[in-house]
Amino acid sequence: MEKPARHESGPRIGPSVAEILESHVSGSGSPSRTARGVADAIEARGDDGTWLSTVPREQLLTAAAELENRPGARALPLYGVPFGVKDSIDVAGVPTTLSCPDYAYVAEETAPSVQRLLDAGALYVGKTNLDQFATGLNGTRTPYTIPRSVYGGEMISGGSSSGSALAVALGQVPFAVATDTAGSGRVPAALNGIVGYKPSRGLISTVGLVPACKSLDCITMMAGCIDDVDRVMQVMQGRDDADPWSRAPGPTSGGGPIRVALPPPDELEFFGDDAMRAAHLGFRNKIAHLGLPVEIVETSLAPFLAAGELLYAGPWVAERLVVFGDFLAEHPDSIHPVVRDILRSGERYSAVDAFTAMQALQELRAEVGRLWQTMDVLVVPTIGRTFTVDEVLDQPIKANTMLGHYTHFGNLLDLLGVAVPQGHTADGRPHSAMLLGDARSDDTVLRLAAALLDEPRTGAAGPIPDHDTERLTTWPTP
Amino acid sequence: MEKPARHESGPRIGPSVAEILESHVSGSGSPSRTARGVADAIEARGDDGTWLSTVPREQLLTAAAELENRPGARALPLYGVPFGVKDSIDVAGVPTTLSCPDYAYVAEETAPSVQRLLDAGALYVGKTNLDQFATGLNGTRTPYTIPRSVYGGEMISGGSSSGSALAVALGQVPFAVATDTAGSGRVPAALNGIVGYKPSRGLISTVGLVPACKSLDCITMMAGCIDDVDRVMQVMQGRDDADPWSRAPGPTSGGGPIRVALPPPDELEFFGDDAMRAAHLGFRNKIAHLGLPVEIVETSLAPFLAAGELLYAGPWVAERLVVFGDFLAEHPDSIHPVVRDILRSGERYSAVDAFTAMQALQELRAEVGRLWQTMDVLVVPTIGRTFTVDEVLDQPIKANTMLGHYTHFGNLLDLLGVAVPQGHTADGRPHSAMLLGDARSDDTVLRLAAALLDEPRTGAAGPIPDHDTERLTTWPTP
Repeated sequence: MEKPARHESGPRIGPSVAEILESHVSGSGSPSRTARGVADAIEARGDDGTWLSTVPREQLLTAAAELENRPGARALPLYGVPFGVKDSIDVAGVPTTLSCPDYAYVAEETAPSVQRLLDAGALYVGKTNLDQFATGLNGTRTPYTIPRSVYGGEMISGGSSSGSALAVALGQVPFAVATDTAGSGRVPAALNGIVGYKPSRGLISTVGLVPACKSLDCITMMAGCIDDVDRVMQVMQGRDDADPWSRAPGPTSGGGPIRVALPPPDELEFFGDDAMRAAHLGFRNKIAHLGLPVEIVETSLAPFLAAGELLYAGPWVAERLVVFGDFLAEHPDSIHPVVRDILRSGERYSAVDAFTAMQALQELRAEVGRLWQTMDVLVVPTIGRTFTVDEVLDQPIKANTMLGHYTHFGNLLDLLGVAVPQGHTADGRPHSAMLLGDARSDDTVLRLAAALLDEPRTGAAGPIPDHDTERLTTWPTP
Repeated sequence: MEKPARHESGPRIGPSVAEILESHVSGSGSPSRTARGVADAIEARGDDGTWLSTVPREQLLTAAAELENRPGARALPLYGVPFGVKDSIDVAGVPTTLSCPDYAYVAEETAPSVQRLLDAGALYVGKTNLDQFATGLNGTRTPYTIPRSVYGGEMISGGSSSGSALAVALGQVPFAVATDTAGSGRVPAALNGIVGYKPSRGLISTVGLVPACKSLDCITMMAGCIDDVDRVMQVMQGRDDADPWSRAPGPTSGGGPIRVALPPPDELEFFGDDAMRAAHLGFRNKIAHLGLPVEIVETSLAPFLAAGELLYAGPWVAERLVVFGDFLAEHPDSIHPVVRDILRSGERYSAVDAFTAMQALQELRAEVGRLWQTMDVLVVPTIGRTFTVDEVLDQPIKANTMLGHYTHFGNLLDLLGVAVPQGHTADGRPHSAMLLGDARSDDTVLRLAAALLDEPRTGAAGPIPDHDTERLTTWPTP
């Protein structure tokens, strides 16, 4: 495999949500000053493929000023905190493109997940790039500028939430809203050295998200630390009767020991990337010596990988046609060739294929369900190897399959996942550990993630506020 | 509609499980005497379409004698209690036919659900008739003798568990094992004036059952009273890792008031059977005056019926081809013409159809899930009208659709159901009320069912015994 030159760069994560709030409340900073800084940072980069649309500078400054002048806004949990939104999620008055100009439409309503952020005082900055129709983990399936990882060396940003990961890794915003159906919220985080959190399905409403596979989609977030994840999650999560998959979060986990499951080393696949193997095995030694009690157990990946195989070689691709089938039929030439071929592959599956696969999945869910009785968190690499843009353009399907090796099974098995940056390869590429937990065990998984980042855990334990009570109906949508 | 002449007959339910046990333990009766009585009763009827195979008299008596002579057997919870098994469930050494002679095979293992009964001292009597491949609610889709309801007048027995219902209604056995995918365990109970209990999915292992729709199938029981249901359920239920849908029963319900939901009368469909409408509305007046506290609430049937429509007009029929597709392709002429046409209809659905329907089902599940927060038990008719054999032979699909009006949605929405005999129409046909509850609320629903039958509720509360510890490996399989 083509090894990029040793990298000198990496993420330049900006101030955290807590730091921004502190500056806004103390007066050492202000939403307006923060907004100006964001606009400057984005302009300074030029078109690097991170953003597909941004709120015009003057409009962003106006929104910040209105926020500053609104009584009580200062007390909001995300007062003046800037954020980006993956361009498959609706923000009223803004085009939703899905990286497909001919599919694009101007959204009439803001997705409830984003509205909760606005209602909490957050400052919407713009829409981020993605693999078209959120179909792909490569980050190259876009008719717009193909983004590169902050690690340079022509390394891909990963996808499909390529721009959301970059906006955070470049320090432009402290967090960005993304999505994850088969790894789209974790793979780009791994390739840009940041945190990618895919909550348990149903905790965040998916209303206003253009579905990839509606039965599997999750709205996720990119962030620089777990404290930011906790603060944003407190705002974003909440039941939504309009989302049939909506459900309440699980209980907080308390402080007991965490049973951390590691696969036997010979089950780990790095696709020839020995530097990544060395980085991951080195990282595993660290887990036993964290600032919280852990118990290491060994667990085979076999049933997890079998579920990933079902997703990747099975009929679920047909679910994408529930949404995109008509567009595929009417505007095939408007679709990225690789995405078009993938969508078309969904047409060959019968309902019998679908039921056969779902029965097989049920067997695997039952097997994995028994494994969760012996472990709390499964730790694997987020990605087994990295790729350059040319490598994935040469073999888009093969590269995608390798990139999704550890992520494809997550949503099918109803798991949550957190990609946590953990050091580098000897040649300076990012290593990311993925922490997986059973549905609704988010607090336990995030507790381990915080320990791996040497963060004190503060944000999670509080009750979930109901932002409907403080909805600001007069809040201007950009 | 063709009205059968006023009926004089009806079920002749024999001694209950409790009465049989009492006689066996006290010595006023014995397993041998009970076995002889069963053999006599079956012989006396001749071939009426109830049984597809029975244990030869001498073999049955030998099994009873061995049981009597086995130390400790007298203490078993079903000591010498005879039972029948629907012929889609395996009993080692016995052909499983599914009412399709060319499909039949001799089972090598006994289904765990049946093995638990044998291990508890129950006496296996034989295999009961069914609509072929458990496909149909009519009771006429069999190459063997078409059974008639115990109410006579050429009324159908209903299906698909036609023989299991008859064996109990004729007083030949106190209970029989049946199945229910779309109503097969409840419709025949309604037409024969007995109890048909479809537990929450997963409480009874479906291993050893030839699937109809594997994701929906439940093993059920036909019985004469709720106390028998409780006693048999205590034996049959139990986790089975080999059944991926297996799950533990819900908690017992305590003695609090039960919120009973009734649909508005104008939502009830009786397909022109005014006598059945009168019988059902009369029955509804009784609910408020039972020997247990109830609170009546009104609930629309709309989302339930919409789910039934999905099952009946949707892609789930394709799931039957997962099992029967090859046989359909290779032996089309071996299949009952009506069943063959139904199976073939499954071939026209695509995976996109399947995912579209599953997304629609998820919406309905969420809507119904919210309704369960306002009610404990939904009460509807089990069937809206009855049919004669000629009527269903004339219009097999239309009749089946009408018969399944109140049952089709149950398993798709993960409900449990109990068909409870409640009086008769003015012209002497059976009226059956169906009590539906959300998954794992079995105890609450059975508590209401017992009250409707003026039964004291005794059997349910006890812990679930693990019969593996008392498995009798030497038990002779017929």
